[in-house]
Amino acid sequence: MKAPFYLSASALFLGISSAPLAAQTISAPVTPSSITETAPNEDWKSIPPEDLVIFTLQGAKQVIVQIAPPVSAGHVANFRTLAADHWWDGTAVYRVQDNYVVQWGDLSEEKPLPDGMPTELAEEYSQPMEDAPSEILKIGHPDSYAEGAGFMDGWPVAFSGDEYWLPHCYGMVGAGRGLSPDAGNGAELYAVIGHAPRHLDRNIALVGRVVEGMEYVSSLARGHGELGFYTEEEKPTPVVSVRLASELPLGERPQFQYLDTASRSFADYVRTRANRKDAFFFLPAGGVDLCNVNVPIRRIPLQR
Amino acid sequence: MKAPFYLSASALFLGISSAPLAAQTISAPVTPSSITETAPNEDWKSIPPEDLVIFTLQGAKQVIVQIAPPVSAGHVANFRTLAADHWWDGTAVYRVQDNYVVQWGDLSEEKPLPDGMPTELAEEYSQPMEDAPSEILKIGHPDSYAEGAGFMDGWPVAFSGDEYWLPHCYGMVGAGRGLSPDAGNGAELYAVIGHAPRHLDRNIALVGRVVEGMEYVSSLARGHGELGFYTEEEKPTPVVSVRLASELPLGERPQFQYLDTASRSFADYVRTRANRKDAFFFLPAGGVDLCNVNVPIRRIPLQR
Repeated sequence: MKAPFYLSASALFLGISSAPLAAQTISAPVTPSSITETAPNEDWKSIPPEDLVIFTLQGAKQVIVQIAPPVSAGHVANFRTLAADHWWDGTAVYRVQDNYVVQWGDLSEEKPLPDGMPTELAEEYSQPMEDAPSEILKIGHPDSYAEGAGFMDGWPVAFSGDEYWLPHCYGMVGAGRGLSPDAGNGAELYAVIGHAPRHLDRNIALVGRVVEGMEYVSSLARGHGELGFYTEEEKPTPVVSVRLASELPLGERPQFQYLDTASRSFADYVRTRANRKDAFFFLPAGGVDLCNVNVPIRRIPLQR
Repeated sequence: MKAPFYLSASALFLGISSAPLAAQTISAPVTPSSITETAPNEDWKSIPPEDLVIFTLQGAKQVIVQIAPPVSAGHVANFRTLAADHWWDGTAVYRVQDNYVVQWGDLSEEKPLPDGMPTELAEEYSQPMEDAPSEILKIGHPDSYAEGAGFMDGWPVAFSGDEYWLPHCYGMVGAGRGLSPDAGNGAELYAVIGHAPRHLDRNIALVGRVVEGMEYVSSLARGHGELGFYTEEEKPTPVVSVRLASELPLGERPQFQYLDTASRSFADYVRTRANRKDAFFFLPAGGVDLCNVNVPIRRIPLQR
């Protein structure tokens, strides 16, 4: 078999990643992949198990979601409550709209919600910059939807004036709602499966992002009702169970780390994403958009 | 069944689209959908049948690609030659990388190419602005990858300095290649299935876009080899046949139209995409990125 047609510069690096490291560092150009592969351990931050929600779809397909920082505090709190209540057990994926979203929950809206969980949530989709818990690493290239964009505590953020918010990038998970001013209750979730629908930013609450198993979400058969809802002839995909990683025995908890967005490694990663100079590229872009800088996340093998 | 949780403002419009038109125009706000639904017929342009390439995947799934304007003239010419030669008959989809591309052709590279077809193509990925066949309708919002962006003759374009090019938006089809300066020969094709990888702009030749059947491409099972190539245990999806619509009998040719990007309707559509004010939205974005303005394309029912 001859060499396949590579599309990505990371291809080259991956293609030689079994070579000795010394040879790589001499011959291979700096790429986003090489930066994450050589970042020192102290640049990787662990995701706490109480922030990891494991959805198991039919066929034992696990989709693991990291809970977002509380920009939409009420929605994020409900996400935690519903996950702890195992509320999505026995629900289903009932909508798959190409280049847009996959949505799951209880379409009948008949399933009782956990006692005491607030169901009238505020339309809270951004936060004041002055309340930001950390400094934003600015991406340094124009954004089509905001005055600026960058990263904070491992998450992409956009900002204008005196507020910041989470963007609707690929793999982000949000809480569906009805027409404004309804803000939803957090029980119907969606994940972005196409080009980032950034017009939803500051209009719907984002509560997390998929850190593993995105392929099981993105490859579901598309629905053919309006907006990608499944018709009566199409089969929803059962959501078998939902569990917080913190509920599992210590030795069974999946462990993930993200590249610290305040680290030098991450800054290098962003700059290199914007200026690919490895052997595949003819012309570096000289820019990158927020949703094309996926914060590197890695799974740590279980130690038994 | 109660009302589903709508995510999109077009939902509202679609939800009442069976109401009398008069009632709609009074009660419904202007949305991207309402603009395309009410655009006069003269704002729609037909796509010539010689510009439509019909790929049939296993299971009679048709993926229809419109051939791109010749920004990469050599690659586009080869796309026409290979399609007319039925070269992709009996080839396969061998790579599906999540949030990136689906790729198909002859992975063995052993299949003979059509006699006389040039195989050493130029690295030609942009064109001088002064040679542009039409004026660019500028989008009017910042672009992360170019000085500006807009639309020309039904296609998205980006531009900087004195050149313009086609962008890697969702559904765009390109010609895979090896490391620069190799430019590929047009036989290995890919389609974008995730957030637009705009860093590939001006680095690989774009030859078309999917106008129908994208769901069959985007929902293929992801490959688990490096870069999403299928492993030996995973099954490539056969490409049964490729035909130009112009080869089919007149009564069997699929017919498509695109909304003229020089029309008032399209300008309204772009402005409304950037400023959604219908009942779902809390806050209009005030901006939109190039790959979030999908040029409206509609199929015209066959007349028998």
